[in-house]
Amino acid sequence: MAEYVRVAVDAMGGDNAPSEIVKGAVDAATANEQVRILLLGDEKAVQTELSKYTYPKDRVEIIPTTEVIEMAEPPVNAIRTKKDSSIVRGMKMVHEGEADAFVTAGSTGATLVGGQIIVGRIKGIERPPLAPLMPTAKGPVLLIDCGANVDARASQLVQFAQMGSIYMENVIGIRNPRVALFNIGAEEEKGNALVKETYPLLKELDDINFVGNIEARDIPAGAADVVVCDAFTGNAILKMYEGVASTLLGEIKKALMSSLAGKIGGLLIKPSLKSVLKKFSVSSYGGAPLLGLRGLVVKTHGNSKAVEIQHSIEQCVTFQKAGINDQFKDRMHLVDRTVKKEESAS
Amino acid sequence: MAEYVRVAVDAMGGDNAPSEIVKGAVDAATANEQVRILLLGDEKAVQTELSKYTYPKDRVEIIPTTEVIEMAEPPVNAIRTKKDSSIVRGMKMVHEGEADAFVTAGSTGATLVGGQIIVGRIKGIERPPLAPLMPTAKGPVLLIDCGANVDARASQLVQFAQMGSIYMENVIGIRNPRVALFNIGAEEEKGNALVKETYPLLKELDDINFVGNIEARDIPAGAADVVVCDAFTGNAILKMYEGVASTLLGEIKKALMSSLAGKIGGLLIKPSLKSVLKKFSVSSYGGAPLLGLRGLVVKTHGNSKAVEIQHSIEQCVTFQKAGINDQFKDRMHLVDRTVKKEESAS
Repeated sequence: MAEYVRVAVDAMGGDNAPSEIVKGAVDAATANEQVRILLLGDEKAVQTELSKYTYPKDRVEIIPTTEVIEMAEPPVNAIRTKKDSSIVRGMKMVHEGEADAFVTAGSTGATLVGGQIIVGRIKGIERPPLAPLMPTAKGPVLLIDCGANVDARASQLVQFAQMGSIYMENVIGIRNPRVALFNIGAEEEKGNALVKETYPLLKELDDINFVGNIEARDIPAGAADVVVCDAFTGNAILKMYEGVASTLLGEIKKALMSSLAGKIGGLLIKPSLKSVLKKFSVSSYGGAPLLGLRGLVVKTHGNSKAVEIQHSIEQCVTFQKAGINDQFKDRMHLVDRTVKKEESAS
Repeated sequence: MAEYVRVAVDAMGGDNAPSEIVKGAVDAATANEQVRILLLGDEKAVQTELSKYTYPKDRVEIIPTTEVIEMAEPPVNAIRTKKDSSIVRGMKMVHEGEADAFVTAGSTGATLVGGQIIVGRIKGIERPPLAPLMPTAKGPVLLIDCGANVDARASQLVQFAQMGSIYMENVIGIRNPRVALFNIGAEEEKGNALVKETYPLLKELDDINFVGNIEARDIPAGAADVVVCDAFTGNAILKMYEGVASTLLGEIKKALMSSLAGKIGGLLIKPSLKSVLKKFSVSSYGGAPLLGLRGLVVKTHGNSKAVEIQHSIEQCVTFQKAGINDQFKDRMHLVDRTVKKEESAS
């Protein structure tokens, strides 16, 4: 039992639940003998999907739940009231050590809130950041934070830099990852109050490869492996990426369809275009980890297909096998304030 | 004399100075009889360029200057010490009423600093925002602010919304422009402390068409005409736009060149692609206005060609003829705090 990595999977989350989620879970269990999957959701619906496949039955189990948190629900309320939802139950399993990780394509808000109040933080971690990978011309970049910390403090950004570096090194396999601070100019004295306070703190750290400030225009070109920012800025960066790419490709497509030469040319360039789009897809890396928790929570896209679910489960296995949370504790010199308080009180 | 709009132009700023700047100025003077141009720069160099053209000599004048502020110079220091630079002299002309507007492709930092301390703010305007136009699938959007106000206050964002709305209506000709607040979600309660404080203030204004929050991914699709944000966020949005577009188009080009079918297809789609790129170019609108000053300052791209300079000069004419600064004073109900102080002191 102990050698398995136990991944709880929200079978009810996202646009393609439960079919694609169950398929992804089956694919992961089939491809990786080290994983044991706990599928949380409506028992009958999940069983119906499972019955379509042959799979290692001893490593895929259904955990029946009766409630579902919808995308539009106010997260705090949903987490508090829907005790038998797949998200709350899955996170509780991680909190209670019955699972090592939890994967969901469901509500981002509920995932962030649940991670904080159900799974709980590693002692000494100030705030858990959500860290999606973005595609660049030179491989993926980890954008940390895109989660709930919209009014972040410098000390939090420092922890994001450390966690991001350890994650990219161990889970994505980038040696000595280049960690950059997002800013509006390259010079140290540039920026708002937050980044001006953060820069010298990052410069002092000797256990990360801090490469200084990075401007937005250099991110898609691949000038860093980890980009550190508050979640408000991270969200702007991430969603501009999606918005510009989708608008630009849509306009190109429309222009091609408006002339015969464009249509013929469009057919000829299709394979090249597909290769670019494939390069700019990050679903092969899995979803966005919510880091700094006592366990791992991975948030995949709402429209995830089986392949992203499968890779997210594999991401949990790598995370667990590499002992990332132990590395956080050891390498970040985390101070467990609870223990300190108790000690000084005794 | 009074019917002319007098535009001071920095002939020494940007990558293509003085040749493209002088050409743009000549084109503007030729196309528009209402403009009088004051070309600031090295007398001999500017004269050499001017002598290449036939142009209305009574409306194009050289103002000799001896210094140039370089792109990389620390702006505050440059503005203070280079008293005979084209930027400092041009801005002084606006301050002293010898010119109505100033156009420069030079240092953004020096332009922002000079606008504040040489040209000076309209009384009651808290901070002057730099407001570039960005292309969208449905026409241009004004992104206000992308300048120096990286730690903005809610009251400043409210003024940005008002100035942006008046500008888009009168200079770009958008009726009842849709003004949106940049945020990480559509709901009123989302966001960081700044936008949470700003939202209800914008909702209260009855002289702008406030359409609520806008997320980054909806900007390129054209969901608003004016997007209000602090300059740190604005910079992230603007430069992600440039970065994603340039990386994506670069990768597509590279992919096309890697196969024969791609090369042939590439030739066939060239006209379509050009039409898209043209649609996504904003140089036909001129440069980014620095608003709220006693006069107008327009910052064009560093790599501006003659056409952008010409359009920026025309933009100054429209701005002046529409009496935008008077509209700011009247419609924004600006409180002149200096006068109030004097009154209460007497």
